[in-house]
Amino acid sequence: MSISVTILGCHSATPRTFAHPSSQFLEINNRHFLIDCGEGTQVQLRKYKIKFTTIDHIFISHLHGDHFFGLIGLISTFGLLNRNKELHIYGPKGLQEIIELQLELSESRLGFTIVFHELKSNGSELIFEDTQVKVYTVPLHHRIYTNGFLFKEKTGERKLNIEAIKASPEIEICDYQNLKSGKDFIKENGEIIKNKTLTFEPNKPLSYAYCSDTVYKPGIVPIIKNVDLLYHESTFLNDRKELAKTTKHATAEEAGKIAKEAGAGQLILGHYSSRYTNLNLFKEEAKTVFDHVILAKEGEKITIDSKIPNELTIAYQN
Amino acid sequence: MSISVTILGCHSATPRTFAHPSSQFLEINNRHFLIDCGEGTQVQLRKYKIKFTTIDHIFISHLHGDHFFGLIGLISTFGLLNRNKELHIYGPKGLQEIIELQLELSESRLGFTIVFHELKSNGSELIFEDTQVKVYTVPLHHRIYTNGFLFKEKTGERKLNIEAIKASPEIEICDYQNLKSGKDFIKENGEIIKNKTLTFEPNKPLSYAYCSDTVYKPGIVPIIKNVDLLYHESTFLNDRKELAKTTKHATAEEAGKIAKEAGAGQLILGHYSSRYTNLNLFKEEAKTVFDHVILAKEGEKITIDSKIPNELTIAYQN
Repeated sequence: MSISVTILGCHSATPRTFAHPSSQFLEINNRHFLIDCGEGTQVQLRKYKIKFTTIDHIFISHLHGDHFFGLIGLISTFGLLNRNKELHIYGPKGLQEIIELQLELSESRLGFTIVFHELKSNGSELIFEDTQVKVYTVPLHHRIYTNGFLFKEKTGERKLNIEAIKASPEIEICDYQNLKSGKDFIKENGEIIKNKTLTFEPNKPLSYAYCSDTVYKPGIVPIIKNVDLLYHESTFLNDRKELAKTTKHATAEEAGKIAKEAGAGQLILGHYSSRYTNLNLFKEEAKTVFDHVILAKEGEKITIDSKIPNELTIAYQN
Repeated sequence: MSISVTILGCHSATPRTFAHPSSQFLEINNRHFLIDCGEGTQVQLRKYKIKFTTIDHIFISHLHGDHFFGLIGLISTFGLLNRNKELHIYGPKGLQEIIELQLELSESRLGFTIVFHELKSNGSELIFEDTQVKVYTVPLHHRIYTNGFLFKEKTGERKLNIEAIKASPEIEICDYQNLKSGKDFIKENGEIIKNKTLTFEPNKPLSYAYCSDTVYKPGIVPIIKNVDLLYHESTFLNDRKELAKTTKHATAEEAGKIAKEAGAGQLILGHYSSRYTNLNLFKEEAKTVFDHVILAKEGEKITIDSKIPNELTIAYQN
């Protein structure tokens, strides 16, 4: 079990050649999700060789342009690529109207259905679930209605203790699935072998939280408690703490505080204001309150694995 | 008097890293216009160091995404840059609704006014005029309502024949403006010196036509007759002539025919389908019917000057 986040864009406001607005591609338990979709996201997907066809679920945090202006273009491209499977979009009220109006006026006839999931709750709610993953909203506090998203792996199957199993020759391969799902083994004579003696604990399920855009909001801590990997916006440094409050953004120190209070495993910073040229200052500031900080960079694929949950691996997608 | 066209994007359909959708920046008689605005146009403007603030008029040919998906992002960026002067947008019905809906839902409060000019005529009409330039629509035939645009310099002032003027010492510098505007000179004794003897013809006013997207439509020839510089789409080559008809696009040969029939000075091809990797084939095909063909390339600034109207200069904006 593992989670990989590929950073497609991690800058705030206007797109520039090497500074794209928010978008992330998430791989979790063989599920693939797109989170936010600023202008140019489809070009970034191509650049980093991510297969468009793997994306069936897109989560939009809020309706500021740097988080969704690329969505209509991506949807149109899905159409040109002859997509025929459903596309699910989770986002605030109004997003459906924006998309449908543009499809209607351009007389686009998509060969697939878009299923819109309108988010409106101010509390955290379960918005997606399948056999592998659950996704919850993380209500944020920004200038307009905004959600972060918490992605949680479900607890996996128990792992077979092959040595212990081999000591009981009555157990056959066809029994393995029952053992993995936690059932005891009952011999023909009625004797019970406890599951715990035949299996190991499953891998620790991992979790990832995406929190952008938001002012410092300790209220989210209970929702993202013990998250393994946390992306939290840090538009500003402390030198612009007041501006952060006014514009409902967070500073790097505040992002660090949220990570610390939540007991997060690792913190990824992003959504940098273009006012700053030395991004290392963000890391330094967050590290004054929380140790495990990395800076989001375009093209970076950040992975955590349940086998070594306290370590990150970072690969570049170029 | 001169016209420069900077190619910001010249490919059809989906944007790719080095193949952006339609957008051009036009400089004509010190006026600056943006024509079409595919996704990523604002990044291209930055890349080619074009000052955003020079753009007061944007012309949108039609509501297919590869011609306007970048507009809302550009407008938002104008807002972030604290623009306060009016922005004029010329385009089909529906464009205003698309833009205003997104501004409303993102609660954007722009510090400037957008003046929408809704185009709906099926005939050519004058849509912009100032002291230097006139702009007309060129009704095209595509899958949805589409206009090309014809930009015409106004005839400039007559040029002073200083040698002839000096032969008449009664003429003072304060009389020059009257001479430039074509008036005869009347001596104190009532004698008239004909303007033509004191001035030369003004520079030839230049014109530029942008024709995309369209099927081969000879009906536009009278509108763009004798245009100096013609951009005409050539989505396909003749190998896909039928597909061109079905999708209401033109082939390179058809673009060449329009240029020939219109007596154009120069032809620029663009809006290439991604099916083709060797773009030189477009030039070769168009040249079978028309001599002066160039291929649009991103970052190219193509200039014609009234002093040498039959020659192009091409500079790269990197």
